[in-house]
Parts: sequence; structure tokens; C-alpha cells
Amino acid sequence: MDERVREHAETLVEWSARIERGDDVVVVVGEGAHDLAVATAEKLGERGANLLSTYRSEEIQRAYLSAHDGEFTDDPEYELALYENADSVLILGGQRNTAATADVPGDRQSAHSRSREAIREARLATDWVSTVHPTRALAQQAGMSYPAYQDLVYGAVLRDWEELAGEMAQLKDILDAGSEVHIEGEGTDLTMSIAGRSAVNSAASVAYDSHNLPSGEVFTAPADTEGVVTFDVPMTIRGKRVRDVRLEFSEGEVVDYAAAQNEGVVGDVLSTDAGAKRLGELGVGMNRGIDRPTDSILFDEKMAGTVHLALGRAYDACLPEGEAGNDSAVHVDLIRNMGEGSRLVVDGEVVQRDGRFRWEDGFTGPA
Amino acid sequence: MDERVREHAETLVEWSARIERGDDVVVVVGEGAHDLAVATAEKLGERGANLLSTYRSEEIQRAYLSAHDGEFTDDPEYELALYENADSVLILGGQRNTAATADVPGDRQSAHSRSREAIREARLATDWVSTVHPTRALAQQAGMSYPAYQDLVYGAVLRDWEELAGEMAQLKDILDAGSEVHIEGEGTDLTMSIAGRSAVNSAASVAYDSHNLPSGEVFTAPADTEGVVTFDVPMTIRGKRVRDVRLEFSEGEVVDYAAAQNEGVVGDVLSTDAGAKRLGELGVGMNRGIDRPTDSILFDEKMAGTVHLALGRAYDACLPEGEAGNDSAVHVDLIRNMGEGSRLVVDGEVVQRDGRFRWEDGFTGPA
Repeated sequence: MDERVREHAETLVEWSARIERGDDVVVVVGEGAHDLAVATAEKLGERGANLLSTYRSEEIQRAYLSAHDGEFTDDPEYELALYENADSVLILGGQRNTAATADVPGDRQSAHSRSREAIREARLATDWVSTVHPTRALAQQAGMSYPAYQDLVYGAVLRDWEELAGEMAQLKDILDAGSEVHIEGEGTDLTMSIAGRSAVNSAASVAYDSHNLPSGEVFTAPADTEGVVTFDVPMTIRGKRVRDVRLEFSEGEVVDYAAAQNEGVVGDVLSTDAGAKRLGELGVGMNRGIDRPTDSILFDEKMAGTVHLALGRAYDACLPEGEAGNDSAVHVDLIRNMGEGSRLVVDGEVVQRDGRFRWEDGFTGPA
Repeated sequence: MDERVREHAETLVEWSARIERGDDVVVVVGEGAHDLAVATAEKLGERGANLLSTYRSEEIQRAYLSAHDGEFTDDPEYELALYENADSVLILGGQRNTAATADVPGDRQSAHSRSREAIREARLATDWVSTVHPTRALAQQAGMSYPAYQDLVYGAVLRDWEELAGEMAQLKDILDAGSEVHIEGEGTDLTMSIAGRSAVNSAASVAYDSHNLPSGEVFTAPADTEGVVTFDVPMTIRGKRVRDVRLEFSEGEVVDYAAAQNEGVVGDVLSTDAGAKRLGELGVGMNRGIDRPTDSILFDEKMAGTVHLALGRAYDACLPEGEAGNDSAVHVDLIRNMGEGSRLVVDGEVVQRDGRFRWEDGFTGPA
């Protein structure tokens, strides 16, 4: 076994999920994630935690959903009981074919999702962490060779998280204290209010309210968005490749949109509900282990030198107690490079210019 | 996908487990059983049952047990809750390496087993069925090519179960009415009491109190065993190959034993506890799809033309209400061919001679 698989499992169990003796841990094993599951089991054994493995197979899901008439039982009791009694859920992604469910009707998938809301809530109430084991299918999705993709994944996962958390705390402090964010650059001139909102220092650990490994972003919930923004990092949204999305906001709402490819998908997202036309998240990628997009949101949105904005639902962790943030059935991230010619400004102060934060070497020019 | 995989899944879901709409079904997926799991998911979807897949991996088990200090939590609540709320459990065996846990200390495995007694009870209280998907590792264990092994598995599984149940009912009636069984043949002259005991017509369906697919045996719980018996079908017991076991009984208890290979394993089994020296089961194999031993008890004990006797625990289904059968921590089956020169006699009447039952063509000689 690649020694990095063991280090990945160690990071997952110790840094991310903070597993302790006697914890009831569900390990969700993706079709291609067997090796990471074995390494994770070893770490759970060392810690004296309890282990139950479930199998997340897109091919099983496809067969089941395709054959079902669509009248699903709401929150089957046995699965609900499993998650309600679990302390932690470790989700080991690792698809063998990212198109495995491409021929399942969308309404069947939605109906199944809707029937499992209480199960989802119970899972999200645990100390859950989502990570991914590098597979050839994911390398293909990224347009990369398998060894190069493995290097990228482990470069992103096996970081000095304590150190990165320290660096990200600087940005969190600025955003927590700030009232207005201004993003400038080619095709982009956007302002948002962040007054009263709290940023999350997403350092890949439940101890930081962070449930992704890798993580490495600071995010908050913006409001009252005005202006225009262009997203130059390509994405796959609802199975379709989307490029160069441009959104225009007025009074917090999208009033115009365009895209160089699959513009219709953007229209579909925007027309989901009222909240889908408003932003739910402003995130700043700070993971330097991720140096290119791989067509996987888990990685792309954490890429150092990018910001992302999400249409739709806001995260409660960013909102003051008792305040409801933007609500929507969707949360769709769009990503923008912040290199040469871009600026991230908070309350008139430049926080990042040409891809460098003001605490970094090479940050130049007027503050 | 091999069409036989779909037929296997159909037999499992419809004939064996009798799954109905809304049933909460746990599918336990072995490392090499993915294809059968996909086909099973399709059938469960058709039936409108609920599906939760767990992953049974010997490699995960090995990693976990090897790293653990051995002080296991008793019956972790989340797993207990899962099985207590499940209606059916479909166990899809299919190992990729039958020696995958060979280097886990036996006491670690036993301690883990002992810590999960309530979970095991909860699982056994469901409509559970255990089956196996043919893998290359299992073909190797059987000493067979993969295609030939697949043919054997599907030949054993895809039977006319209704018809076989009808044939087996004839033997069940004889055993239920009978008082004494006499087994004769080379190296064998054994009598057992079966007075008051009920035989199980094990027709591979929960509707017949039968939890194995394939099945195809009639079994009961004997007592007061006297005489000698030789088992000429080789077995692997506790990881060791055992051949030509010979047991001598007096007053129901083994008083002498021998084996041509690994005699020590037989001694270990016998010394487990008091019940390990007594018989818990007499079974008669009647599945004509199984025409040779494959070193897998799920198949071997159902082989037409054999009987098996188990040292240790008896099944409750064979005992009159309120009567305790033989009790033991073990249940170890040993198998004997009943071909040329062998006779199975109940209360002085020959039921099987030279491998033929008295209702079969070719059964000859005095009754």
C-alpha cells in the first residue's frame, strides 16, 4: 500500500474527525475507495473506536433507482436508527465511473433524495467528514494521468493543517470585522455586504466546523450583492460542462446571466426558487496543494488564488444566532481565479492582489 | 452481466427472502460480490423494498482487528439499532482471498465475536439469507477453473426449489415419524435417536426456516449416539485441511477420534466444551446441483448423496418446545459420502442405499 494512503487515513481519523475510544463510527466506502477504507480501519482499530462499513456504490444506486417506481418510503427506520446512534460518519468517496448514474431520470433521483431528509439531517448532526480516495475515473475527470492525480490529491490532503489554520485565521479575522467585500478584476466589479456575519476557518476538521478533507478555505455568507462577476474556472454542473459564467446582480439578486458554454444550465439553477438567484456563500480558496482545477468541487473551491460564490443556500455557521440566511433547495458554487489583475478588498483595504495576500511575500503596492 | 447473476438475485429476493414492498433490507456486500449486489438492488427496487448496503471486507476486518488492543465495546448501539430495525438481511459472500485474515490472532477474533452477541441475535431474528457470489478466490479454494466453478454455483442456486422442497418433504416425514437412525458403510456403523425431534426441510427460503442459498438438505437434532463413523469428504476446519476423520461414540459422547491429516484440529474442536463432544445435527444433502466438494461448507453439506454430522450446538427448530438441545460454542460439520456400499436406515427401514433414496429410480434391493 502507498504510504500516503496510511497518512491520509491518519489525517482523516485524527486531525479531521477527532475519533476517540468507543466512538461509533460509520465508514461509507465508495466503490473505488477500498484501500483507503482498509487504512482507515487500521487507524480506527488503533484508537479503539467501533467500526461499521457501509458501501456506497453508484452502480447499486443506479440499479435500485431505475427499477423502483419512485414511491419511496420516507426515512426508513433502520437507516435512521443507524445514523441517529452514530458519533461520526467518514465518507470515503472514490468513484470508478463518474457517469455511472447518467441514465437515471433526474426526477427519480430527486424523489429519492426528498424521501431521506431526516436521515440526511441525522448524518449531518454527527461529526461527519467527506474525503476522496484517488481513482482512475477521478483522474480521467480531471484530465490527468493517474500518478499525477494521486500527487495532487495527497498534496492537497497531507498538509500542515495547524499551520494553514493559523494563516486562514488572519483572513477570518478580517472578514469577521469587515462590512463590505469588493472583488475586482477582468469582467468583475462586485460588492457584497458581510456585516454581522461570521467567517468559517475551514481547516479540514470537525474542531473547526469543517467537514471536508481536503479543505483550506475561509467562507462567509454575503448579502446585498451589487455588480458583475465572471467565473473563469470551468465546472461540471448537473452533468454539463459550464464555462465563463457571467452574473449581474442588483439589490442582491441576479438580474442578468450569460455563459460561454451550457448557459441553459445556469438558467435552470437560477430558476429553482427565489433563493437560487441570491448568493449563499463567498469562499476564499487557500489550499496551495491544489494548483489546478480537477472538475471536482471538493478540490476546486479550495484552490489557492481563487474565490468562489455560491448561488443558493447559506451555511448556518456564518449567521448570527437567530438570523436566517439565504434559503434555497440548491447550493451551486462558481469559481474565479484571483491572479494577475484581481483584487479582494475589505472595507477599502486590499487583502489580496494579483493572487497574493497582504501577509505574503511578494504582496506589493498601496494597501 | 451474466444473466445467471440476475436469476440468482431474483431467486434470493423472491424465493429465499420473500421480500415485500416497504421491507427494510440490509444487503451485506462481500469484497467480490459487487455484481450480485447490483442485480439484487435491481430486484429490491422492483419490489419497492428499502435498501441499505453494508460492506463486508476481510481486509478491513484484518486491519481493524490487528490494530485493536482487543478490549472491544459490547454490541455498539448504532449497529444494534440497525439490525433491530431491519426486516431482512441478505448476506452476499464472495471473498477475493479466502486466507485474508490468516494472520489475525485467533483470540482477537474470538474476543471480537464475543463482544457482538446481541448484534448477532438481532441479525438472526430477521429474515436473513446467506448466499455467495462466485469469485476466482472461491474457485481456487475449490480447485476449479473459474467458469467451471461458476457453473457449479449457478447449478446449485438456480434450481426448481418448489420441486426439491416436495422431494425433501418425503424425507422430513420419515425423520419426523422415526425414532432411530442407523448409518452403515465403510468404516461406519452408527446409531442415533431422533425420537421427538422435528426435521427441517431446508429449501433455501425463510418460508421453510431455511437461511442458506443454495440449500437442499433435511436436518434434525440427534441424541444418544453410539458407534463409529468415518467422514471421507475433506474439509478445511480452522484454516487447516482435515481428512478422513473417524469418531467413536459411546453414550452420546465421542470417546475416541482419529484423522489422516491434522488430527490435532479435531482434538481442539472436541475439547472446546462438554457439548462439543456430542452431536448437534444430522443433515442429509439432497442438492443434485452440487456434484463435488468445493471446500465451502455452504455447498458441501448440501451435496446430494452425502450426510453430515455436526459436533456441537443443535438448532432450536429441530427441538420440541421447551426442550434444550445440545449446547456448545461450536458447530462443526463433518461430511460423509453415502454412495456405493452405504445405507441410511430409519427404524429398520432402508431410506437410502448406494446413494439412491427409496423413491428414486434405481433404488434396489430389500426395503
